[in-house]
Amino acid sequence: MYSSKYLELLIEELVKLPSVGQKSAQRLALHLLRVPREDALRLAEAIRAVRERVGFCGTCGNFSEADPCALCSDPQRDGALVCVVEQPGDVLAFERTGTYRGRYHVLGGALSPLEGTSPEQLRIRELLERLRPPADGSPGVRELILATNPNVNGEATALYLSRLVAPLGVKVTRIARGVPMGSDLEYSDLVTLSRALEGRREVE
Amino acid sequence: MYSSKYLELLIEELVKLPSVGQKSAQRLALHLLRVPREDALRLAEAIRAVRERVGFCGTCGNFSEADPCALCSDPQRDGALVCVVEQPGDVLAFERTGTYRGRYHVLGGALSPLEGTSPEQLRIRELLERLRPPADGSPGVRELILATNPNVNGEATALYLSRLVAPLGVKVTRIARGVPMGSDLEYSDLVTLSRALEGRREVE
Repeated sequence: MYSSKYLELLIEELVKLPSVGQKSAQRLALHLLRVPREDALRLAEAIRAVRERVGFCGTCGNFSEADPCALCSDPQRDGALVCVVEQPGDVLAFERTGTYRGRYHVLGGALSPLEGTSPEQLRIRELLERLRPPADGSPGVRELILATNPNVNGEATALYLSRLVAPLGVKVTRIARGVPMGSDLEYSDLVTLSRALEGRREVE
Repeated sequence: MYSSKYLELLIEELVKLPSVGQKSAQRLALHLLRVPREDALRLAEAIRAVRERVGFCGTCGNFSEADPCALCSDPQRDGALVCVVEQPGDVLAFERTGTYRGRYHVLGGALSPLEGTSPEQLRIRELLERLRPPADGSPGVRELILATNPNVNGEATALYLSRLVAPLGVKVTRIARGVPMGSDLEYSDLVTLSRALEGRREVE
């Protein structure tokens, strides 16, 4: 039983978040009651704003309140390089590395016969649109990096896209799949290890 | 770099929560963008409501929008039994057990010479008030359970309270300290093991 109905309601909402259990939800709720009022209200407002203002970028398909989004309209980023990912979370993962300076294209998923995801349900038409040489003669996309997930659906999607894009004369690359950094070869799975051998490169 | 300013702001707020790192904050933010809009807004509203409506119960000192709180005013609970805890989170922990049917008293901390917490800063005056026999002759508090933390400050607070309450003729008990259930004796610390021996009880 809770001493406060509002506390109980908050815990009920928090427990719906991914990987937040009953105990974590209680701890988070008490935290929100203890911090300065403005801090808690700022979080509430940030959640509200994100749902009331944020839509999708018409170019890359990522979450954005502006169209084109901040990434697509940043002149510092190389528009000739487009990295194709499945989900907005993948963009965040690449941005965390801090090494990629090109643009993105979010498909919104991967091809999956099992889950019934067909090409029309992904942002593939929009991708082909982006790959068309610009009418004003400016240099268009030079390289398409396929960064779908290294699993069955992601690999199938990458294969599908590479064949679809081949006639357009755009260079198509796939991110390297191999043993992850910091891992232990002894515990690597067969598929990863086979792929690492297959993808070996000459030491320079 | 983020594709959306509002997404970035939300991640900034989420990362301030306890045990939420950059990656978890990003995952939570994307989750809040993916779920039905009403679900996200309900969380925002629950946070706002908790900060705008919830204060403290004048009796037990726990968080509550009503005074007395739902626990203090529940006629099903035994008012003759009062469990003294340091923080509201401790009440939640006892309520999770589902076995305690008495009332609570939240001190708001523990005595700590190091951190400069003196008896006046805890809700001890209010506790003594509760222990006074009711003027209407109804039965008052019969037993006071000291459930402060089993550490230096909590033990000191329990000792202080037991001496303070002794003249009032109220039975004062302390929760059992010993080896935690499911633990391995081999890895128990010295103090816990000594306390478990000291607190041994005859098998009935």
